[in-house]
Amino acid sequence: MTHAPAADHLVLFMPSGKRGRFPKGTAVLDAARELGVYVESVCGGRATCGRCQIVVQEGKFAKHGIESGPSHISPKGPKEERYERVRGLAADRRLSCSATIEGDLVIDVPQDTIINAQVVRKDADTRVIERDPAVRMCYVDVEEPDMEKPLGDLDRLIVALERDWSLTGLTVDPWLLPRVQSILRKGEWKVTAAVYRDRDDAEPRLIALYPGLKNEAYGIACDIGSTTIAMHLSSLLSGRTLASSGTSNPQIRFGEDLMSRVSYVMMNPDGREAMTRAVREAINGLIGKVCEQGEIDRHDILDSVFVGNPIMHHLFLGIDPTELGGAPFALALSGAVCLPSSDIGLDLNPGARTYMLPCIAGHVGADAAAVALSEGPHRQDEMMLIVDVGTNAEIVLGNRSRCVAASSPTGPAFEGAEISCGQRAAPGAIERVRIDPETLDPRYRVIGIEQWSDEPGFAEASEKLGVSGVCGSGIIEVVAEMYLAGIISEDGVIDGSLAQRTPRIIAEGRTFSYVLKEAAPRLTITQNDIRAIQLAKAALYAGIKLLMDKLGIAEVDRIAFAGAFGSFIDPKYAMVLGLIPDCDLDKVKAVGNAAGAGARMALLNRNHRREIEDTVRRIEKIETALEPKFQEHFVSAMALPNKLDAFPKLASVVKLPERSADRPERDVEGGEGPRRRGGRRGRR
Amino acid sequence: MTHAPAADHLVLFMPSGKRGRFPKGTAVLDAARELGVYVESVCGGRATCGRCQIVVQEGKFAKHGIESGPSHISPKGPKEERYERVRGLAADRRLSCSATIEGDLVIDVPQDTIINAQVVRKDADTRVIERDPAVRMCYVDVEEPDMEKPLGDLDRLIVALERDWSLTGLTVDPWLLPRVQSILRKGEWKVTAAVYRDRDDAEPRLIALYPGLKNEAYGIACDIGSTTIAMHLSSLLSGRTLASSGTSNPQIRFGEDLMSRVSYVMMNPDGREAMTRAVREAINGLIGKVCEQGEIDRHDILDSVFVGNPIMHHLFLGIDPTELGGAPFALALSGAVCLPSSDIGLDLNPGARTYMLPCIAGHVGADAAAVALSEGPHRQDEMMLIVDVGTNAEIVLGNRSRCVAASSPTGPAFEGAEISCGQRAAPGAIERVRIDPETLDPRYRVIGIEQWSDEPGFAEASEKLGVSGVCGSGIIEVVAEMYLAGIISEDGVIDGSLAQRTPRIIAEGRTFSYVLKEAAPRLTITQNDIRAIQLAKAALYAGIKLLMDKLGIAEVDRIAFAGAFGSFIDPKYAMVLGLIPDCDLDKVKAVGNAAGAGARMALLNRNHRREIEDTVRRIEKIETALEPKFQEHFVSAMALPNKLDAFPKLASVVKLPERSADRPERDVEGGEGPRRRGGRRGRR
Repeated sequence: MTHAPAADHLVLFMPSGKRGRFPKGTAVLDAARELGVYVESVCGGRATCGRCQIVVQEGKFAKHGIESGPSHISPKGPKEERYERVRGLAADRRLSCSATIEGDLVIDVPQDTIINAQVVRKDADTRVIERDPAVRMCYVDVEEPDMEKPLGDLDRLIVALERDWSLTGLTVDPWLLPRVQSILRKGEWKVTAAVYRDRDDAEPRLIALYPGLKNEAYGIACDIGSTTIAMHLSSLLSGRTLASSGTSNPQIRFGEDLMSRVSYVMMNPDGREAMTRAVREAINGLIGKVCEQGEIDRHDILDSVFVGNPIMHHLFLGIDPTELGGAPFALALSGAVCLPSSDIGLDLNPGARTYMLPCIAGHVGADAAAVALSEGPHRQDEMMLIVDVGTNAEIVLGNRSRCVAASSPTGPAFEGAEISCGQRAAPGAIERVRIDPETLDPRYRVIGIEQWSDEPGFAEASEKLGVSGVCGSGIIEVVAEMYLAGIISEDGVIDGSLAQRTPRIIAEGRTFSYVLKEAAPRLTITQNDIRAIQLAKAALYAGIKLLMDKLGIAEVDRIAFAGAFGSFIDPKYAMVLGLIPDCDLDKVKAVGNAAGAGARMALLNRNHRREIEDTVRRIEKIETALEPKFQEHFVSAMALPNKLDAFPKLASVVKLPERSADRPERDVEGGEGPRRRGGRRGRR
Repeated sequence: MTHAPAADHLVLFMPSGKRGRFPKGTAVLDAARELGVYVESVCGGRATCGRCQIVVQEGKFAKHGIESGPSHISPKGPKEERYERVRGLAADRRLSCSATIEGDLVIDVPQDTIINAQVVRKDADTRVIERDPAVRMCYVDVEEPDMEKPLGDLDRLIVALERDWSLTGLTVDPWLLPRVQSILRKGEWKVTAAVYRDRDDAEPRLIALYPGLKNEAYGIACDIGSTTIAMHLSSLLSGRTLASSGTSNPQIRFGEDLMSRVSYVMMNPDGREAMTRAVREAINGLIGKVCEQGEIDRHDILDSVFVGNPIMHHLFLGIDPTELGGAPFALALSGAVCLPSSDIGLDLNPGARTYMLPCIAGHVGADAAAVALSEGPHRQDEMMLIVDVGTNAEIVLGNRSRCVAASSPTGPAFEGAEISCGQRAAPGAIERVRIDPETLDPRYRVIGIEQWSDEPGFAEASEKLGVSGVCGSGIIEVVAEMYLAGIISEDGVIDGSLAQRTPRIIAEGRTFSYVLKEAAPRLTITQNDIRAIQLAKAALYAGIKLLMDKLGIAEVDRIAFAGAFGSFIDPKYAMVLGLIPDCDLDKVKAVGNAAGAGARMALLNRNHRREIEDTVRRIEKIETALEPKFQEHFVSAMALPNKLDAFPKLASVVKLPERSADRPERDVEGGEGPRRRGGRRGRR
């Protein structure tokens, strides 16, 4: 604020809601800065970059006591008019560096300021993330060298950055030292500095320098899954996602699941190095792909955020994951990591930085942290359960006041492995199943075929495509439907007596199977398949129960299913099987690649980094293997949906079979205990 | 201090003179810490490293009101006794971590604590530098991994360092991330962390980690001259210099003097890179040499300080020096540089750091800054002139309240170049000359021969060695003696009329020469040789005068001659010739490789880094080429010793020829102006 005695005007910024009084004539950008409202600006108020656009809201805002309108802001001056003429400016937009406050205002800061608009691609994740990136682009005019004041070129640049951008204590990436001189001359002493500042209390760092006005900077957010690597390319200045893509993790050739990769490292002297190289190469390739899609130069990428489970996290950083293969499952490092991308072999701008979210525990990685950041149980009052189902299920439960986390060794059954007719979710896989409780005949839907199996046109389509197996969601549904149809008991035993009613129940040795599809290839659900699902879901549920015990709660308000599996599963059937506790069905939702969304949040707003670091520090970690009650919960959870826990909300929507409440526990056949750590654990 | 109500005792630490009152029972080390007295400790008070030794002074210290003696300190406890038994402890030494205050004490903190004493080599620079190195070695005991508290290994190490060493906000070198886990296990959770902290307000940085107790850390201080590279190897923990060595700068093959090296860069596309590679290779070789001498592993070197003139500075950092070849002589960077040594290709510990002192101006480099740090005009009240004579003379003048600096383009005459009989200082070169004012016959001394030329045994020795030329100090002396003997006038003209008195004056064309040595190879001092010396010394003196003008002073209190040339030159003759202004001869001294000494100060005590950064910021830089009075001073300084300035102090010791005060200026023959920048400038 100036010290002018002019009448102050009330200015409210949306969506942040921050407000303050400013003297007439204050530049809107200065007002925003003073209130801590993030408005991008590269050119430093010269009305050339166009990043600082705002919209004046018109009308009476009774709630705020403000009457706002175009007459309360200064008319366009010559600089802004020149920008409009040369670069174009939407009718309702103003440049906040040039427009000054002339009355009370409600100002909207659009989060999507599109400059030099390239094609905006569709993005699964359309959420708008408020921006405050770690990289700022700062245009400055540097004094020319002068024999009388023999300060070096770089030193004069630093002086200019301190003067115009209040960057005190700036340090400089060594790679720039030999380059500063020629860049300054190329830009005729006008340059744009890329300044990295992950934390406000750390020294700002000059990481890149461009001649003239550089009005773009990009970042990538990447989720390194053991099977798939997914990446988003975003503009750090507008927040837009320019491209999203994925590739398979080439480490698969060293081992399908996580444990086999750890074994590979233990058995092969160069194993760790080979896997680190493989994943970094794949990531560099994927960077090329998103840059091609987004039509940008990879050297304009200045920041990057990576997440992954602990083993992916370690291998990516070049750390031996062997310790994660056995108790006490010690992470080499659990805190957030911030380093130059070149140190881990990423081919980006030489000054680019990489941030990795913290890991929560030895089995609950930076990916789970990213999911928590994305879904934000710590930001809400409702008690939220987040389940990321994979070979290890990662579970976070909590709300604003307290969060707990654990992982449960579910094994790969939910992904179709260990199931006789199981397969990955791919064309030809049965993904939906309904069973008629009267006839016990099924109908199903197949990935790649529009119709259900009992609808016209299915036969032709299936002949053409082939129906090859049952994927994860299909298995969940068929087992749940078998239970609802009375084919299996609450203990998961296929009722052999039904063989009298339908030829679909067939004897196989001492147990029975259900024929889901007769025509070759014949697909049957065996007693062993049911057992595999029971073991997996009991492990998951027992982990959830431990967390609920820890918080002393009997029910959850909201459930988020993260990951690909969660996107395809029908919450109703998951609940019928007792994978998850009772909950309003409309409060159970799939959140897709929430890990990727969380990574993007950390990319675009460094406050989200502090938020998740703080949250992870506060999350209480439960090691399921150490909890005496795990076994007990596991045994109860072997039943469908559960031997002890009621599902009243589910029962109000789905007619559940009556419980044979007094059936003794020993009747649970083949009662293996839960999986142990260090045994088979696999991809997620 | 504890909160015990025990009587407080007065404790005085020497040599710092810091004092304070502490309760009985306070560990001496804690008292030192509280007062900010630097006492090394690696083991953190476990009485195992032996670094924290102190000596109790015995007696009545009336001035301080302290009676101190061994009874005022606790007797040795079991830990200290064990250390004494196992490692040995001098009779008067105590471990300050174990010894507690039991009465008033005067305590001496020895600056030379020798642990595991290796051979201590002789070092030209024997000054004791108070230590406060940027690298600290911190021994810690790290908690073992625990499934219930799933903090990563590195994170637990950070917790331990914060707990035991108050290191908050510690960041970690990325190269350590993959190594922390195995080092912790190798040390059985006891490790020594090397923590780098150049400034107290910067985040401390973990740069290296060793299993168990690592009770050593080394650093190098290096002066990159255009001709010679000189290096010291020091213990960062004791301050001792373990080895000193030098090597020639291999860049000589690209160009003998600085300007020819700049030209090489301008003419050859890979020239800069080739010269950077050459100097770094030579430095890596020299590191090998000092490590062999010092019997240490180069990977135990954790810190390094480099100085050099601006062109050496830039080439070492990989920066194109072309801009330094012409006006406005813009430095790419002038401020101090702090970077990982691996970034500039040094083969030290992978976490080692490099610090380079700031450059003062385009011709006054980090070497001049190091000389200033070493000689410390800014630390004293006396007005001190520092002259580093080379092809460019770098000049610093000032005292506590104000400092100015400049460089003068003296050309290479002082090094024997441009002189008909000149040669480098090497065996066979005449280095001392006396001329009998009666006979005009000379006698001289030759490098490599003990006797003067008129002493018995010289003839045989000189026949064996050969007398090949005159080196810089010899030229200064012969010209000065010719002046004192009346062979040349105050304007530098050889008096041809003397040919009648002696056959040593011979005509050569329109001018005359003086025959210094008759026998082959005949060595003569020609009129052109005299002119070359006059031009060089006039440039130097004119530069000095400009600085004196700037400070408004007519005389200086003290003169320091830095560099090799300064070590051999006789101050009296330098003053007779008028290289330097009048001054008490016993206040003129050669300070040897003061640049190397300054580098060592910055290596061993980071406060000296702040000191010289601050001093360089405050030093006023004079660009001689821009000063109108330079020409005027230069013309006066062509005369011997000077046309205008009197040398009363010199005249009280040396009988100077009478001045022909009214000889008109135009009589100065061959009156070329001073050299210009961008013309011939060369090595130093």
